[in-house]
Amino acid sequence: MDKEKLLRRPRGTRDFSPEEMAIRRSVEKVFREVLELYAFKEIATPTFEHAELFIKKSGEEILEEMYFFEDKSGRKLVLRPELTLPTIRFYYSELRAKPKPLKIYYIGNVFRYEEPQRGRYREFWQVGCEIIEGDPLRTFIEGLDIVREILRRLDIINECVIRVGNIDLVREVLRRLGLENNREVFRALDKKDFDTLRSLVTNEVYEKLKPILNNDLEAIVQNFPDLKEIVEKFKKYIEALKGAEIPFKLDLKIVRGWDYYSWTVFEVDAPWLGAEKQICGGGFYDLSDVFDEEKIASFGFAFGLDRTIEALKNVNKLKIEDKRPKIFIAPLSEKAFILALKIAREIRSQNFICELDIRGRNIRRMLEYALSQGHQILIILGDKELSKGTVSVKDLVRNIQREVPINDLMLEIQKILRGE
Amino acid sequence: MDKEKLLRRPRGTRDFSPEEMAIRRSVEKVFREVLELYAFKEIATPTFEHAELFIKKSGEEILEEMYFFEDKSGRKLVLRPELTLPTIRFYYSELRAKPKPLKIYYIGNVFRYEEPQRGRYREFWQVGCEIIEGDPLRTFIEGLDIVREILRRLDIINECVIRVGNIDLVREVLRRLGLENNREVFRALDKKDFDTLRSLVTNEVYEKLKPILNNDLEAIVQNFPDLKEIVEKFKKYIEALKGAEIPFKLDLKIVRGWDYYSWTVFEVDAPWLGAEKQICGGGFYDLSDVFDEEKIASFGFAFGLDRTIEALKNVNKLKIEDKRPKIFIAPLSEKAFILALKIAREIRSQNFICELDIRGRNIRRMLEYALSQGHQILIILGDKELSKGTVSVKDLVRNIQREVPINDLMLEIQKILRGE
Repeated sequence: MDKEKLLRRPRGTRDFSPEEMAIRRSVEKVFREVLELYAFKEIATPTFEHAELFIKKSGEEILEEMYFFEDKSGRKLVLRPELTLPTIRFYYSELRAKPKPLKIYYIGNVFRYEEPQRGRYREFWQVGCEIIEGDPLRTFIEGLDIVREILRRLDIINECVIRVGNIDLVREVLRRLGLENNREVFRALDKKDFDTLRSLVTNEVYEKLKPILNNDLEAIVQNFPDLKEIVEKFKKYIEALKGAEIPFKLDLKIVRGWDYYSWTVFEVDAPWLGAEKQICGGGFYDLSDVFDEEKIASFGFAFGLDRTIEALKNVNKLKIEDKRPKIFIAPLSEKAFILALKIAREIRSQNFICELDIRGRNIRRMLEYALSQGHQILIILGDKELSKGTVSVKDLVRNIQREVPINDLMLEIQKILRGE
Repeated sequence: MDKEKLLRRPRGTRDFSPEEMAIRRSVEKVFREVLELYAFKEIATPTFEHAELFIKKSGEEILEEMYFFEDKSGRKLVLRPELTLPTIRFYYSELRAKPKPLKIYYIGNVFRYEEPQRGRYREFWQVGCEIIEGDPLRTFIEGLDIVREILRRLDIINECVIRVGNIDLVREVLRRLGLENNREVFRALDKKDFDTLRSLVTNEVYEKLKPILNNDLEAIVQNFPDLKEIVEKFKKYIEALKGAEIPFKLDLKIVRGWDYYSWTVFEVDAPWLGAEKQICGGGFYDLSDVFDEEKIASFGFAFGLDRTIEALKNVNKLKIEDKRPKIFIAPLSEKAFILALKIAREIRSQNFICELDIRGRNIRRMLEYALSQGHQILIILGDKELSKGTVSVKDLVRNIQREVPINDLMLEIQKILRGE
């Protein structure tokens, strides 16, 4: 392997610089804070799972989209492509005795083997939550309320679009039109590709599909009176969303996870991201079959952390704030270094970020470095001052330097930080 | 695959329950807080790397201990077995222009294919940091000072043992005894297995090894006068550690990472953990050869997060504190639910954890649930009270219930939380 290749990370992955990580942690924090205020609790599952789990859920084809490998004992493993299925495995194996509803969340990396492109990586991060055994209407409203609160705190609630659909209703309409197994129709619906849709069905059928395209619930009932009950039930969810003042748009063209999603589903778009605009998706699902286990009422959603960050960057809504003071200590000799170390400890005990010169530079270089790192204060420990029992303190913001007795150092720092 | 196996996570991995994750996050927080107060910045690298990287560092044998696989384009990849080498790859490829010293940290999972046993998993977590291009003495003291502060905040500073060695000094002694390539000798030293060591060498050689076993620097100089310079230099480090009041023990038997570590190295033991007692290790190293790059002064260490947590558990030093008030709202009808949702929002805006009944239970069951989850206050929204414009507020700690006007609800909550 040549040198250039050794320095390159694997295709489709990323390294995160200090600046990028600060952004990621600050966005993660918003998710975490909101979910915890709603009394959700964090869990974690392994990075790889038995391949069989995902094959049983999605069929052998899914192997093509995953990182698949055998361990040294021949176990067939995959890097997890999503986090809901592992969570449900964990639920059935160990969490089922917990009080219900069980409200859990996770922040984790997932892996897909697909062509890397703008906004699509082979390793990416999801923040998701699951509500198990809640009342459906209340669960749905709580779920969407969390989404609302997350978007509000990220300050993109007015820019994003929450689209709400009903996969059961669409399924019933398609069944009545003999299209219930027609993947091409699902895909055309999902992509809102009406031309293709029109080419796939007769004119008569297309007319009956139109109410789905137009989100016209009344027309669906007119076409299929026996769907009145399901439509009426769905309307209650819509009314509750309105009552809760959660902004949303009706969109019956959502056919996400056709095989395991059911009832109400939703997606969140950041339209300014273009083709990769969806930052969140979720709904009710049933994964009990994968484990041959009893059915449970389960609802969940996941945000794509990477796309959410991309969305925030694009509208200039990233706020990284570390208001803690930053102080640099410049010891000018080995003897001064140990004293500097002890002063640094005291400063850090005040929850101020404190950096000590560990490069052994001259004072000019230290000053340059301290400024480059955004320090507000520079403390200089010179042997001459130390022999007098003093230190020099430089206010880097206002460019004022004072010599103070070493015992007054903390007071002097407080003064500078108060702007005195 | 049978049902039982589908529910089982892959061998050697773990699922983390809400209780376990709360512990992990709280310990992670201590590491993060300390490292950030020392002005370290977080980075992250991909979960898998080109296998070649680790082979070039450690030889083909290392493949036996890693999760190795090929992606669909035949790229040879491994799940990262440690985080220093990826960090150095990242440094050479993208971070080398940053101001020096570069002080970075990471919290990440790593993977080893070895027999799972108590305290050893196939996926486990490391918290580590690297200091690049610092002055060696200052870097070493700063590094050990961080270790001290972490142990102090974890409240195990008095229970743990920091052992400091010097791999160059040991190397020079072994070279003079013709043992510099004798892996069995290294292993015996590392395991402090003196019987084996005695069987591997002649009596005469064993006598010359004794100063290493006894950490007797003066005797080393007596045996090998030309090592005086290196011993004197090492003594300065020891003096600086003492000056900085960092507790440590001299231990020349540390031979960690023989091939790439150099100069001073250290390990931290939590002796009560028995065989798996080492919770941290580090020192100066050189990985420039792997990348055919210019040498850099690099020092780093990593704590095993899992073992640190195990150590804390065993001496009852885990403190999980979430002092935020927890409030449960019990809406007794659909109409009350939407109002409850809005009240919940207001409560959460005060940074109180607030849970809303989303299961549609009766009041007795809600009370049971609220108590099981540690809520301090239960707010009951009944239709009868609502028609009067009131709500019932129950102080679950003191078991007192009052009916208050809905407009006074936040005041009533504040009162209860103040213990009035």
